[in-house]
Amino acid sequence: MMKHWTLDQVMEEDSFYRRNLINCLSGYKSLNLIGTKNAEGVTNLAPFSQVFHIGAAPPLVGILFRPHTVKRDTLENILQTGFFTLNHVIPTFFKEAHWTAANWEGSEFEGTGLIEEFKHGFYAPFVKSSPVQLGCSLVETQTLQVNQTVLLIANVDHIFVEEIGLRSDGSLDLNTLETVTVSGLDEYHVGEKLGRLAYPKPGILPAKF
Amino acid sequence: MMKHWTLDQVMEEDSFYRRNLINCLSGYKSLNLIGTKNAEGVTNLAPFSQVFHIGAAPPLVGILFRPHTVKRDTLENILQTGFFTLNHVIPTFFKEAHWTAANWEGSEFEGTGLIEEFKHGFYAPFVKSSPVQLGCSLVETQTLQVNQTVLLIANVDHIFVEEIGLRSDGSLDLNTLETVTVSGLDEYHVGEKLGRLAYPKPGILPAKF
Repeated sequence: MMKHWTLDQVMEEDSFYRRNLINCLSGYKSLNLIGTKNAEGVTNLAPFSQVFHIGAAPPLVGILFRPHTVKRDTLENILQTGFFTLNHVIPTFFKEAHWTAANWEGSEFEGTGLIEEFKHGFYAPFVKSSPVQLGCSLVETQTLQVNQTVLLIANVDHIFVEEIGLRSDGSLDLNTLETVTVSGLDEYHVGEKLGRLAYPKPGILPAKF
Repeated sequence: MMKHWTLDQVMEEDSFYRRNLINCLSGYKSLNLIGTKNAEGVTNLAPFSQVFHIGAAPPLVGILFRPHTVKRDTLENILQTGFFTLNHVIPTFFKEAHWTAANWEGSEFEGTGLIEEFKHGFYAPFVKSSPVQLGCSLVETQTLQVNQTVLLIANVDHIFVEEIGLRSDGSLDLNTLETVTVSGLDEYHVGEKLGRLAYPKPGILPAKF
């Protein structure tokens, strides 16, 4: 049986219920910890599920920042300094990753015990023990008129990948890396591979390879 | 051991290798089949991994369309008619979902054998047997100057969810629904739950609930 809501019906649900539902509709989401450091040298770490691929040549990533009346340290630090890191989450620290979203007074690294790593002279902190770490620099931001969401676009200046998860064709084995994915607001998963599929052509169902 | 690339080094990799690598960097991505119908009544179906949540009140989704020199039926159909559907993929038809990306002459529904479903007078076709189906209408598009990617924003007018995967708090159990997630360009997975975590507060590591 399928449950059906029209727009009017979903708007009549209570806001907690609707927020859970709407946040689950797109399916599994990428999960990254964004590391920043403000001009005073205070580091910050926060979980984001709205990071996506914008281009491969040159490599570009996009991040959506929801409008908030509360403070948005991550966005402000990036606008102030120009730099941030993206770090995959793995099961050994997925609780700490979620915990970085608490309302800490100082640095989330200090609060949660996650270890900051500085390398190659990059301004923002990486998360030590993350198997995929990107060092990124701000290109531009755009504010969406529809609801004041901010779309931030950035260059990928540094890529660090645990070699155990790097295949000879450049793709990453996220199962081996143990990358975590998130659904809704608070639910975490690892992936279980169904298969890689051949380049699709009419007339023949793509085979696993 | 971690492999490290600077931007210059990653640009020296061959384009196939770089494309695989860059497409894997954000982690697991949501997977949806987008169903459309052009003004002549020809249906279209295509896989997208760039669908994300933009707002809950009212519910809004965003989709990124990469710039292509090839034809972009999905985007053109939406701009022409104003309507489309989003449909979760499950393991029983993940190969057909991938196959919809082949260069079909007629409708991808006909080519792949996936069954189109019309209901509640909605203009665009849903994918029958998809456990989460959304009927959406165009709000606006923005072109990103950086690389001509098109960001499309849409209302969610209809939500259909298999009741077996709908929890009492409004969240969806994607493991039970068997929603598929994609990594890179061609690799498909289901999720294996680590846990849901309590609302994060300083001083106490969030517990599973």
